[in-house]
Amino acid sequence: MEDLGNVGQRDESDLPRFGGIATFALLPRADQVERADVAVVGIPFDSGTSFRPGARFGPTHVREHSRQLHPYHAIHDTFPFRNQQVVDAGDFGVGPYDIGAAVDAIHAQARRLTLEGTRILALGGDHTIALPLLRAAAEVHGPLAVLHFDAHLDTWDVLHGASIWHGSPFRRAADEGLLDLEHCQHVGIRGGIYDPSELEDDRRAGFRIIRAEAFQDHSMQDLADRILQRLGSGPVYVSIDIDVLDPAQAPGTGTPEVGGITTREFFAVLRKLAGLNIVGGDVVEVAPAYDHAGVTGLAAAHTAWELLTLMGLTPANRSSTSESAVGP
Amino acid sequence: MEDLGNVGQRDESDLPRFGGIATFALLPRADQVERADVAVVGIPFDSGTSFRPGARFGPTHVREHSRQLHPYHAIHDTFPFRNQQVVDAGDFGVGPYDIGAAVDAIHAQARRLTLEGTRILALGGDHTIALPLLRAAAEVHGPLAVLHFDAHLDTWDVLHGASIWHGSPFRRAADEGLLDLEHCQHVGIRGGIYDPSELEDDRRAGFRIIRAEAFQDHSMQDLADRILQRLGSGPVYVSIDIDVLDPAQAPGTGTPEVGGITTREFFAVLRKLAGLNIVGGDVVEVAPAYDHAGVTGLAAAHTAWELLTLMGLTPANRSSTSESAVGP
Amino acid sequence: MEDLGNVGQRDESDLPRFGGIATFALLPRADQVERADVAVVGIPFDSGTSFRPGARFGPTHVREHSRQLHPYHAIHDTFPFRNQQVVDAGDFGVGPYDIGAAVDAIHAQARRLTLEGTRILALGGDHTIALPLLRAAAEVHGPLAVLHFDAHLDTWDVLHGASIWHGSPFRRAADEGLLDLEHCQHVGIRGGIYDPSELEDDRRAGFRIIRAEAFQDHSMQDLADRILQRLGSGPVYVSIDIDVLDPAQAPGTGTPEVGGITTREFFAVLRKLAGLNIVGGDVVEVAPAYDHAGVTGLAAAHTAWELLTLMGLTPANRSSTSESAVGP
Amino acid sequence: MEDLGNVGQRDESDLPRFGGIATFALLPRADQVERADVAVVGIPFDSGTSFRPGARFGPTHVREHSRQLHPYHAIHDTFPFRNQQVVDAGDFGVGPYDIGAAVDAIHAQARRLTLEGTRILALGGDHTIALPLLRAAAEVHGPLAVLHFDAHLDTWDVLHGASIWHGSPFRRAADEGLLDLEHCQHVGIRGGIYDPSELEDDRRAGFRIIRAEAFQDHSMQDLADRILQRLGSGPVYVSIDIDVLDPAQAPGTGTPEVGGITTREFFAVLRKLAGLNIVGGDVVEVAPAYDHAGVTGLAAAHTAWELLTLMGLTPANRSSTSESAVGP
Amino acid sequence: MEDLGNVGQRDESDLPRFGGIATFALLPRADQVERADVAVVGIPFDSGTSFRPGARFGPTHVREHSRQLHPYHAIHDTFPFRNQQVVDAGDFGVGPYDIGAAVDAIHAQARRLTLEGTRILALGGDHTIALPLLRAAAEVHGPLAVLHFDAHLDTWDVLHGASIWHGSPFRRAADEGLLDLEHCQHVGIRGGIYDPSELEDDRRAGFRIIRAEAFQDHSMQDLADRILQRLGSGPVYVSIDIDVLDPAQAPGTGTPEVGGITTREFFAVLRKLAGLNIVGGDVVEVAPAYDHAGVTGLAAAHTAWELLTLMGLTPANRSSTSESAVGP
Amino acid sequence: MEDLGNVGQRDESDLPRFGGIATFALLPRADQVERADVAVVGIPFDSGTSFRPGARFGPTHVREHSRQLHPYHAIHDTFPFRNQQVVDAGDFGVGPYDIGAAVDAIHAQARRLTLEGTRILALGGDHTIALPLLRAAAEVHGPLAVLHFDAHLDTWDVLHGASIWHGSPFRRAADEGLLDLEHCQHVGIRGGIYDPSELEDDRRAGFRIIRAEAFQDHSMQDLADRILQRLGSGPVYVSIDIDVLDPAQAPGTGTPEVGGITTREFFAVLRKLAGLNIVGGDVVEVAPAYDHAGVTGLAAAHTAWELLTLMGLTPANRSSTSESAVGP
Repeated sequence: MEDLGNVGQRDESDLPRFGGIATFALLPRADQVERADVAVVGIPFDSGTSFRPGARFGPTHVREHSRQLHPYHAIHDTFPFRNQQVVDAGDFGVGPYDIGAAVDAIHAQARRLTLEGTRILALGGDHTIALPLLRAAAEVHGPLAVLHFDAHLDTWDVLHGASIWHGSPFRRAADEGLLDLEHCQHVGIRGGIYDPSELEDDRRAGFRIIRAEAFQDHSMQDLADRILQRLGSGPVYVSIDIDVLDPAQAPGTGTPEVGGITTREFFAVLRKLAGLNIVGGDVVEVAPAYDHAGVTGLAAAHTAWELLTLMGLTPANRSSTSESAVGP
Repeated sequence: MEDLGNVGQRDESDLPRFGGIATFALLPRADQVERADVAVVGIPFDSGTSFRPGARFGPTHVREHSRQLHPYHAIHDTFPFRNQQVVDAGDFGVGPYDIGAAVDAIHAQARRLTLEGTRILALGGDHTIALPLLRAAAEVHGPLAVLHFDAHLDTWDVLHGASIWHGSPFRRAADEGLLDLEHCQHVGIRGGIYDPSELEDDRRAGFRIIRAEAFQDHSMQDLADRILQRLGSGPVYVSIDIDVLDPAQAPGTGTPEVGGITTREFFAVLRKLAGLNIVGGDVVEVAPAYDHAGVTGLAAAHTAWELLTLMGLTPANRSSTSESAVGP
Repeated sequence: MEDLGNVGQRDESDLPRFGGIATFALLPRADQVERADVAVVGIPFDSGTSFRPGARFGPTHVREHSRQLHPYHAIHDTFPFRNQQVVDAGDFGVGPYDIGAAVDAIHAQARRLTLEGTRILALGGDHTIALPLLRAAAEVHGPLAVLHFDAHLDTWDVLHGASIWHGSPFRRAADEGLLDLEHCQHVGIRGGIYDPSELEDDRRAGFRIIRAEAFQDHSMQDLADRILQRLGSGPVYVSIDIDVLDPAQAPGTGTPEVGGITTREFFAVLRKLAGLNIVGGDVVEVAPAYDHAGVTGLAAAHTAWELLTLMGLTPANRSSTSESAVGP
Repeated sequence: MEDLGNVGQRDESDLPRFGGIATFALLPRADQVERADVAVVGIPFDSGTSFRPGARFGPTHVREHSRQLHPYHAIHDTFPFRNQQVVDAGDFGVGPYDIGAAVDAIHAQARRLTLEGTRILALGGDHTIALPLLRAAAEVHGPLAVLHFDAHLDTWDVLHGASIWHGSPFRRAADEGLLDLEHCQHVGIRGGIYDPSELEDDRRAGFRIIRAEAFQDHSMQDLADRILQRLGSGPVYVSIDIDVLDPAQAPGTGTPEVGGITTREFFAVLRKLAGLNIVGGDVVEVAPAYDHAGVTGLAAAHTAWELLTLMGLTPANRSSTSESAVGP
Repeated sequence: MEDLGNVGQRDESDLPRFGGIATFALLPRADQVERADVAVVGIPFDSGTSFRPGARFGPTHVREHSRQLHPYHAIHDTFPFRNQQVVDAGDFGVGPYDIGAAVDAIHAQARRLTLEGTRILALGGDHTIALPLLRAAAEVHGPLAVLHFDAHLDTWDVLHGASIWHGSPFRRAADEGLLDLEHCQHVGIRGGIYDPSELEDDRRAGFRIIRAEAFQDHSMQDLADRILQRLGSGPVYVSIDIDVLDPAQAPGTGTPEVGGITTREFFAVLRKLAGLNIVGGDVVEVAPAYDHAGVTGLAAAHTAWELLTLMGLTPANRSSTSESAVGP
Repeated sequence: MEDLGNVGQRDESDLPRFGGIATFALLPRADQVERADVAVVGIPFDSGTSFRPGARFGPTHVREHSRQLHPYHAIHDTFPFRNQQVVDAGDFGVGPYDIGAAVDAIHAQARRLTLEGTRILALGGDHTIALPLLRAAAEVHGPLAVLHFDAHLDTWDVLHGASIWHGSPFRRAADEGLLDLEHCQHVGIRGGIYDPSELEDDRRAGFRIIRAEAFQDHSMQDLADRILQRLGSGPVYVSIDIDVLDPAQAPGTGTPEVGGITTREFFAVLRKLAGLNIVGGDVVEVAPAYDHAGVTGLAAAHTAWELLTLMGLTPANRSSTSESAVGP
């Protein structure tokens, strides 16, 4: 593989990976390189949370548990930090007391990066942050196909007087014309529903549903095929609520739902999605106060790494992906 | 669906679901409605425990983690709190120092409810409580088919001098003629055995076994079919020890056993059992001191909700159950 | 002591105190008695938090750990639930997304109670809730002396664009004329300061300071005397941020500060304040996600009990207070 | 100091103290030496618990956290394992299902040791176990002075139908004539009281009270003097409920009470009691499920070590005790 | 089954299994029986750890959580402690400060046992300990087939200047000629890779790989067949890093990796390997400080039990193994 | 106070202090300013640990919990980041597998800073790191007075074959002539002793002892006076093992010892030491795996802040220190 001169993870020959101040995956800070293809940014905002708050500490927790990420992806046979310049751009400035102002601040900061041609992978924070990120991405790319992994629909309307909260980002995005209504897909849904009309509203917002229960009965290949077919070839935004995972694997989140998927299933599906034209994404709802031994932090860090790997894969080199998990 | 005038969960437009004093699922207390089809009752008793005690705090923990339960069941396409009046009847009075007296007290209180035509869903407490609940149910319905989810057989005889403890309820029930010996079924068994004769004793107590290992190799449909066939069409008591789940998903229990089933598997099987004539049940052995981030509490609360849903489904409306987890 | 016919804690002869749905101290609900002298209310609001959120779950946690409270106060030789009718009035309705609307909602609900002559002891929630509670109390009683136990001043101005947040309630209260500027007192202060001008602002808001360090060098009697002298004989509002305690004793809070006071010191001072004319109060900033083994919940529940005891003591019966901790 | 040939702690030159199967303080098992002056025994019984159970796992937890205990006591300038043969005699056999049978079994096993001239230091288990241990000790020594460190009186009568439970051992002991009613002393009392008559009952059972609050205002020397005066020169049984400590220092217990004493205060007092004629004792109510980072286990293990040190000190060598904590 | 006179687990009729000082599975200590077929030994060494240390406390933790192990294996229909004498031989003496000296000390102690004909099942400690154990086993049995369950290859070379650390034991073993290079197999691999050349090095060290992802798509029978085919009929050493399990099931380890296997899958495969000629093994990398509610301890204890069961099965009695998990 | 142009903590008007990648106290990195008076450096090394390892994660944990530190010190009436340039210089490179090599690496990196005139405040790591830091400081300043807060003497000799480990740094330093033997002082000692000869060895290494018990009976002023008298006016190195604190306040450490001091006592003494000529220091032995809710991290971060404040105070401005904790 050609050396593109990108700066990768910190050399650890002198200082072990458990040492040093952690950037995401021990990658360079934005100010340490000339340009970035992808910027990992933290968004420490959780005021849109409807149940257990604390995702404001998510970025720190995910960075800390990203120390174990490595440069080579054995299944894809690729180096996600070589074929693109990935940086840690720190955290966006955002205050906790005014959801509207926060959304505007996130939008402004995201816009600056996307207009420079840098794609954003955001570490939440709660799911509210997807709305301003979608706004920034749609300004550059037009209406977006959204691939949404979550236990919850997040296409609800007003709650407790707020139209923007962590259960409404995709409703608002659809209202604002940011979504390509023919190409959005939920995966992992299983959370509570008040009324079946919510499912109709969701459908109108452009989404089709693969419930978590489908992982019980379908092969990962079937599910990936269905996702690829729905998403199409246009620009895709991938939004991942860590509560798509089962509480056993991701207790550190605000609205855990039993009956979820495992990281093994999740990554098996994700790895079959090489070739998607991913223009941005997020990993949200990591609430460290409820985590134990870092299992949620590890899952989120690894999820971000898988997403970065997908972002680094062009359709051309997808054919080199090794899919066998049992060696000859 | 016809409005039967039943009182459901508390309206949360003013007070979010994380607020307020928690009844189970934020349902009305027994004294707030005229009558009840099903009463959820707590039984804070754990003196029958043989290993890690603490299930006396189970009812409180399950109630607290039932705040996230919602009114609509998307897989069954039904509203479990509309087609039947479900109430929280508080906790049964029961002291910790005398197992015999406790069993009698539980029996007396359960009897009062069942004679009024109210079915009981009990939140344990340890598994000892199944014996007096079976006594009360059998008085009304005659010998019962028992569907028992558990890592352990619970048909053992005397331990440390006690004939009634949390490992013997179904042995005692069989002895007392409370069970329909042709129609009892264990699911999820994997716990320790001293001698194969215990398996013979178990068989004599009316049970057949689906081990946890069966979930590795069989489809959920196969397992559900086998269960339905065994249970038959008579009155069924469903007894669920939370340790049927894997310790990863339910660490908060007294006798955890590795190699268990997941909530996704568990609910997949449960949801295929619509049509059973369930006259009572329990969810037991939640020991909060060993829980983390509420994962066991959530699993138990959701389990109770699934069971309530089954109790609300008559054979007639079972045909409306949607089984597809992947939308069109 | 004369029986005033007040309803006290639930009888536990049938159901042990670890059982049953917990009201505060297992006291009657407001709807179970005719009238209330004091209403314990929960206010599950934490959107004013500037560091670790989660105090929205405070009321539930404090209620759960109030099960161990008993009817008799041995130091004061009094029964705090006999000489006044204390009830648990449940939680105020309050949404998480708009601080201004929340403050108004709390004010309206508090006003209703205070106009009926019921004094409020609120369980937070974050410290923001003190502002609307002071508004309601001042409407009835006029400008209030405030006795404020906290690691932090909470007389700050705007933060991140918000004028009302959990660090500003007493600044806003002073601005609104709710405080008697000659009679307010902080106790336990030790948190971070940006600039000494904050201390001047604080002084202008009517407060004098007893730092936590004073507990190292002064006797509890000295500190109590100083407090009594400052507060005077007018109506007093007692506001207690649980972070006045050391993190060792109250880890479950949002902005812990090392070098705090112990519960033994705290209660020693509190018990010397009998005779104050307490017209309302709060115990705030219990964030259960950071608690361990309930130590913070226990401390907060016991604090509320001490405060209720003080509210039940008239100057007349104060003389009966036994002060010796070493028996004859 | 003369070498009495007693076998002490395991040599750790080959295997560090964190390795190996833990006996108490890495002392020899009873079967590894000829005779024992003092036997440390575990009593894994917690069925007398009225609130949070789990002390059945106390002996294991205390042993595990006794690995750090050392051979030399710097304040007393003595070697507690040299001037007496201390062994770990394992756990007494005791079942969980019948309090009466358990008390008899403990009595029988304790009796066997005491009749051989071995004094017992028991690791609980809940406080119920003090009753049979007092029976065994009184058989040899006659009525005993009891020095009782606890947040609770433990002289209550019947609860939930049981006359023997963890709140009644000293009431029953007084009833049975096991106590020297002129020489019993509680230290650290602060727990809940239903009615002042309980204090009268307690007094009748032979106890005087030093409340926890006394540690705020009195010197440790004053408290020790008062204790020594009360206890007199006869045989003393020392019973230590770990909840005498503040919950910050001993969260791992069943009935924690705020406002407790610190280990530093506790040991300061204990160390001034050299010369007491201690014929037996216990350290009870360690409930590991509620502990964190072993702080309760460490406190209990160290408490046992201090008690063993006192047991090894004869009045004759008491004069050598160094009392200065600030070197020259 | 013939009684071979072997001494099994402690009788628990007097003392419940939660009581007493724990040997592994409550088996006899080595000094309590004449001879041993298999010795379970702890090796409290973790100085080879590259990320989260703490496995030095592994042996104690696994012993403590082995209390629930039972005498009868229902799937294999065998009694693993009857057909062979299994003992707990305590912990090997090993210091923490010099890896080379530690490896030599472990080798010497292991050698003594293997030369006596006792097979070793070691409880780690970190994976470094596999090297001296392989040395001792190879001295008796010649080059060994290694069946290695782990998330990581552990065939790396020098790290931070050390050639022997917990990531290199199999590289060093291959270098030293201890391995049969045609018959080694990794199972469960998924951890980080720096460069694909590491996979080539690994292959040269004699290993083939079944990745964790294979458990998603292959049947347990397929995987077991592949393992049996690779391992052949010679002497086999089974080395199990607990991190082969998913972090949800084994959080208590030093280098957790998402996407792992479950205990149910793991044991399903293990149980199909009866007939292997197992001459030694280890269960390593249990780091209790990161465990919760003992789930990792339980998994490791049960893993050791399954391995002991396999060691007790000769090819002759394998035919009696029951494989059906769904009863007739 | 004159503005010396030093760069202080990050402005938090845009990004709250819970956001962003944490440097110590949100101070500038070393590469962001021209020069540094004091460099805070992490040393993630714990291979000298004799009991519970994990202090290698200390620097990260302390930085994370230093977010709450503020610019103004109210007791000293000073701004510790204004009168000196303090930076976060990241972590020293140091490997885990060879204590000797690690000590040399730390020495070399420390030497580079001290020769530039930058004083070091190191965040450990275990106490082994004090030795190379003393070497570097003594090269510049000559033999050092050491002020050592710790539960343990740390003047032991060889353990398990190692002469350099976390219990020997001051023994080795004395041997190497790095200490001014007339001016060294331990504070807080209470840990285990094998033999009184250890106390003699300690005295020979230049130390006098203030035991933790002294904090029970002496005023903080007395203790501070004694310390100041012993230390004298020469260059002082302050070494703080976090286990000087009681386990209740600092559970997250490797060798906790009951009976410790509180943060309030600790800081009261520290604040009376203004005027010492502090040329370097460390805060060591924070083991995050054993921490809860960050209490140990907070204590360590605040300790470092107090030490930095002392380093910023010259004897000249000491007179401005306000000592009253009770305002006028």
